[in-house]
Amino acid sequence: MLNGQTSQRSTLGVVCHAARVLKVEPVPVPEIGETQVELAIAAGGICGSDLHYYLDGRIGAIEVRQPFVLGHEFSATVTAIGRAVTALQVGDRVAVNPARACGTCSYCQAGLQIHCLNMLFYGSAMRFPHVSGGFRQMLVAEAAQCEKLPADFDLARAAFAEPLAVCLHAVERAGPLSGRRILVTGCGPIGALTIMAARYAGASEITVTDVSDSAIAMGLKIGADIGVNVSREPEKMTAFSANKGSFDVVFECSGHQSAIRSAMDVIRPRGILVLVGLGGETQLMINTAVAKEIDMRGTFRFGTEFRTAVQALVSGRINPMPLLTEIIPFREAQRAFDLAADRSRAMKVQLAFA
Amino acid sequence: MLNGQTSQRSTLGVVCHAARVLKVEPVPVPEIGETQVELAIAAGGICGSDLHYYLDGRIGAIEVRQPFVLGHEFSATVTAIGRAVTALQVGDRVAVNPARACGTCSYCQAGLQIHCLNMLFYGSAMRFPHVSGGFRQMLVAEAAQCEKLPADFDLARAAFAEPLAVCLHAVERAGPLSGRRILVTGCGPIGALTIMAARYAGASEITVTDVSDSAIAMGLKIGADIGVNVSREPEKMTAFSANKGSFDVVFECSGHQSAIRSAMDVIRPRGILVLVGLGGETQLMINTAVAKEIDMRGTFRFGTEFRTAVQALVSGRINPMPLLTEIIPFREAQRAFDLAADRSRAMKVQLAFA
Amino acid sequence: MLNGQTSQRSTLGVVCHAARVLKVEPVPVPEIGETQVELAIAAGGICGSDLHYYLDGRIGAIEVRQPFVLGHEFSATVTAIGRAVTALQVGDRVAVNPARACGTCSYCQAGLQIHCLNMLFYGSAMRFPHVSGGFRQMLVAEAAQCEKLPADFDLARAAFAEPLAVCLHAVERAGPLSGRRILVTGCGPIGALTIMAARYAGASEITVTDVSDSAIAMGLKIGADIGVNVSREPEKMTAFSANKGSFDVVFECSGHQSAIRSAMDVIRPRGILVLVGLGGETQLMINTAVAKEIDMRGTFRFGTEFRTAVQALVSGRINPMPLLTEIIPFREAQRAFDLAADRSRAMKVQLAFA
Amino acid sequence: MLNGQTSQRSTLGVVCHAARVLKVEPVPVPEIGETQVELAIAAGGICGSDLHYYLDGRIGAIEVRQPFVLGHEFSATVTAIGRAVTALQVGDRVAVNPARACGTCSYCQAGLQIHCLNMLFYGSAMRFPHVSGGFRQMLVAEAAQCEKLPADFDLARAAFAEPLAVCLHAVERAGPLSGRRILVTGCGPIGALTIMAARYAGASEITVTDVSDSAIAMGLKIGADIGVNVSREPEKMTAFSANKGSFDVVFECSGHQSAIRSAMDVIRPRGILVLVGLGGETQLMINTAVAKEIDMRGTFRFGTEFRTAVQALVSGRINPMPLLTEIIPFREAQRAFDLAADRSRAMKVQLAFA
Repeated sequence: MLNGQTSQRSTLGVVCHAARVLKVEPVPVPEIGETQVELAIAAGGICGSDLHYYLDGRIGAIEVRQPFVLGHEFSATVTAIGRAVTALQVGDRVAVNPARACGTCSYCQAGLQIHCLNMLFYGSAMRFPHVSGGFRQMLVAEAAQCEKLPADFDLARAAFAEPLAVCLHAVERAGPLSGRRILVTGCGPIGALTIMAARYAGASEITVTDVSDSAIAMGLKIGADIGVNVSREPEKMTAFSANKGSFDVVFECSGHQSAIRSAMDVIRPRGILVLVGLGGETQLMINTAVAKEIDMRGTFRFGTEFRTAVQALVSGRINPMPLLTEIIPFREAQRAFDLAADRSRAMKVQLAFA
Repeated sequence: MLNGQTSQRSTLGVVCHAARVLKVEPVPVPEIGETQVELAIAAGGICGSDLHYYLDGRIGAIEVRQPFVLGHEFSATVTAIGRAVTALQVGDRVAVNPARACGTCSYCQAGLQIHCLNMLFYGSAMRFPHVSGGFRQMLVAEAAQCEKLPADFDLARAAFAEPLAVCLHAVERAGPLSGRRILVTGCGPIGALTIMAARYAGASEITVTDVSDSAIAMGLKIGADIGVNVSREPEKMTAFSANKGSFDVVFECSGHQSAIRSAMDVIRPRGILVLVGLGGETQLMINTAVAKEIDMRGTFRFGTEFRTAVQALVSGRINPMPLLTEIIPFREAQRAFDLAADRSRAMKVQLAFA
Repeated sequence: MLNGQTSQRSTLGVVCHAARVLKVEPVPVPEIGETQVELAIAAGGICGSDLHYYLDGRIGAIEVRQPFVLGHEFSATVTAIGRAVTALQVGDRVAVNPARACGTCSYCQAGLQIHCLNMLFYGSAMRFPHVSGGFRQMLVAEAAQCEKLPADFDLARAAFAEPLAVCLHAVERAGPLSGRRILVTGCGPIGALTIMAARYAGASEITVTDVSDSAIAMGLKIGADIGVNVSREPEKMTAFSANKGSFDVVFECSGHQSAIRSAMDVIRPRGILVLVGLGGETQLMINTAVAKEIDMRGTFRFGTEFRTAVQALVSGRINPMPLLTEIIPFREAQRAFDLAADRSRAMKVQLAFA
Repeated sequence: MLNGQTSQRSTLGVVCHAARVLKVEPVPVPEIGETQVELAIAAGGICGSDLHYYLDGRIGAIEVRQPFVLGHEFSATVTAIGRAVTALQVGDRVAVNPARACGTCSYCQAGLQIHCLNMLFYGSAMRFPHVSGGFRQMLVAEAAQCEKLPADFDLARAAFAEPLAVCLHAVERAGPLSGRRILVTGCGPIGALTIMAARYAGASEITVTDVSDSAIAMGLKIGADIGVNVSREPEKMTAFSANKGSFDVVFECSGHQSAIRSAMDVIRPRGILVLVGLGGETQLMINTAVAKEIDMRGTFRFGTEFRTAVQALVSGRINPMPLLTEIIPFREAQRAFDLAADRSRAMKVQLAFA
């Protein structure tokens, strides 16, 4: 059993052992603590990082060194509560914030919990032992990480809270968007949700680029005003570079070198280029960043935007459901991961745990 | 004839002579210049400052010292163009930006055209001679001040561009609103459009206060989440002051001392209190601003937000039409102004010039 | 004995009982805790709030409801350390940060410890029971609140760390000052240290105003470029209001209505008016703040600026010693307070506890 | 004669014809216009871009396509004034701002004159025809570009205004520095002046890196607190990367890939990395910028900081004279350029034109 723990309880979870080794198997469930709740997981979205663990056994320098449960985008129903829990009741539906900061390190004290030196993030191999995630039937979690939903709220929709929070945080990093011309490069799930988040924040005009016509079509469907296939229509990007550049803000969601380089050409001087995509070694022209005084800003995960995401989903002001390709029973996790890995067929694939 | 000018052409305009002296009478029309256009005015919204000129013959220290045409919220159709004009054609519908900055003073050079030392603003008595406005049948204006609309765009809707620009600028002054809790104090036309602008910019929750139930009802109808009648429900404001305050951002749109004082109590520490309403002498507790480190930010008119307003109206993302109380022929200007001055019956009253 | 505590140890402290009732009497000393240190207080600066407690028995709405030790500007030598303390040793000289935030409330979690809901601040009657301060011979304090000084560092100089931190925080609230034209209104100890802090942060030109020629002379001596006596030279202020205003940033350090009103006239549009002085009910022209889009920002106490203050004192880049009027033995506290209350004779008065 | 102009007057200038082809030869002098002044150039600093033109015949993609006078760091004495000039008199000493923006393009109108689409910058081959510079005995220039100095002010010192303005602008791009820990990578003239500018703006601690011990020694002499030779002491940089990084702000002044990569390791999360050095193709780990949410901000030339630079030189608050290696008569320009190109012997070399 996973991690050699000696808990008397277990549940079924989706465990990554190594590249291409994904097993549905029992994982331990600890007793519930005073400030904790026991959750029946409902829906779990498969994210790019889950796919990297599955396909490559790593994300860049972060390597899978022991089996661990994947999953950090998930929703659930409360099945039991610890003695000190007052904000939740049995039966409540919740979206689970996968991030738990220590609260005491220098970054936490400065209000930068995102950069906590001791961050526990569900389904991440960044630390050792790895932190197991939410792709399992039952989970004991801190009540404080559970954002309560209205009764009967759709738990598939709720499982979009986490990736949406990532994109709302990217938007926050950009500063005000009201009235701005925006470019989103790369229209996978994060690019698409960034389009929604930018629209939500008042962007006047949103252009989306990709190399896939179906991705661009999705981008236009869910809110972009202009779509450009950069492999077929490079002249459109050239036009955007006139007069030193056209876009006030670019959200780089692809992680590809060509997209970042192109973004630097089409952004206006003093424009803000938000780096969302986890690119690797990338060759850039520093001269361009200098001469145009571009602001390049990394963005990572989220803070209070998790709550904002839940509010926007509950109010219906952001509707991510067009991105949901298919819901697959968790016992068929491998089929679900293979589908999610195929950009030509899938945008967001969820596992069902009920 | 107005201002003693010797133009050979004239048109009918709504001229304010002094407090309560409003006449529909001929006003001169100059020849069209190279960079100018001739406009047939369509719709003109009556603003609070128009009302102040009409009712009081002044706005605070600014006094009506000569007859002048009122009006700075208006839309039109192009009837002729100057020789150097290329961006517009006869027949185009336009929203007219009432602000013309000199472009050469120190503020203009610093990008702060709003604070131009030589600003010409339609329908304003701030300078002498006063700058006549757009409440007239025919106007010769700079083409650069005309924002082109789609063919057949509703010109009553277009006449909301100016007050909406004021509110979008107020929102810009506040910084990012995505995910923020907002309070709007005062739900007249500016308060109501601020609700729309804040929603447009991603506010999570908007509370509106007023002393009129009908105003609050309008606020809730057009986008606010919570309404509080401060004269009947003071306890609700007290509740908002718990834990040093509840609101991230307050837009003070009433200009009333009691609203500003109350805003300082219910805003959270480091909250942003945007002063939109043109209040006069107002007694504040400086201690509160200091101890809570409140940011009080004045906001005045607009810059590039005029274009943003037109875009939001054209895209339909902001719909101001619920605020339109009545359209009244300009020859009945006095009836229109009397209606507009009656908060119990009117939100926004427009004059029709066609 | 103070507060009815039953500690077996006591030390002599300067206790405020009510307006004009100041006694040097025994106060209890608790046993040292694991994370604490025992301090022999060296020097203690008398602040405006100490004076308010002494003269009025209150500061605005905050009332002295029980006897408590005054003092929040002080330095000391470590005489004993708790078992868990590693950063300090017996014999170390320290400046003591008087602020202890809870670390767990919503403001602390957001990095806004200044606005902690459970703040313990030495020598403050804001909470009940009041938090006794550092005007005593011996104090047991948290080691984390002690900023270590170089061996033999002048402890009178070190006692300026707290008021300097207040002023460095005010400067931080203003944003970058490099190249800016600055006005400081009111040249008491806080105004004078703000001049130093603004100079330290790169201000190009600093004007100081006061109604006292000796205060202005001090301001010029310690770094201001221009001094204006507003009661004798009002025409100079009028000149500063030309072209909508002259100053990029104003630090209002007087708390007087006339100074705040004047500041709004001489600040340029979009200027930043930092409210440092704890003014009471103040009548302002809201119109002016609106039309000039002034940013009025409260500033209160400090955060990480306490450490910055110690660094600037240790490096010698800020030298507050010209402000030190006299050092008086704490047993003569009443004489010291009376001197400190006399602006014509005193700038900063310190008590000596050794 | 240069550029085939037919002016009847000429003066001697330092003309770059191509890589390694530098001639002192007659260049035309136009008649003085109404808003212009005639200047006797005093001192001219040789900048890195002058060296690139001389050594390589290009700066990156910018190529020398016709002979042009070099030089954009210079001071002068007024010898004649145009009829409309009131701010200057014959005999005045001035520092000359080499930048002239058009004032009418979209960037100028937005207050971003640095990014003017029609910028005329002395001694730059960016446009064609190239804009000849100030390395000549006589120059006719716009009075508005001349910043008046005190009588008898040292004109060698004044010739530092331009590179200092570059560094003050870099500091402005970083936001407030008061209390921050700073790293400056690369201690050539720009790195050294950035150290001064950062100190001027209140930096608490400044670390400088270089590969040359003499450069580091200069950095420490003129204000840095810590020097690290990155080729000999790589372990010190490793230590700075502990806890996700040590520096609040990094000024990258070398343009070298290794320095930028290292900067990303030692900067703290949410730190600000100002790109000052004109680097070329550079390989970066985008992951690092994303995960640490680094702000990378290009900085280019300057705006109002030219005036700030003159003020700081005149007040003596910034003293660049330790950087002046040698003053060489302009007729020996080639020797001066060869010396300036030798980092082991030279920091800043100036030409004398008197």
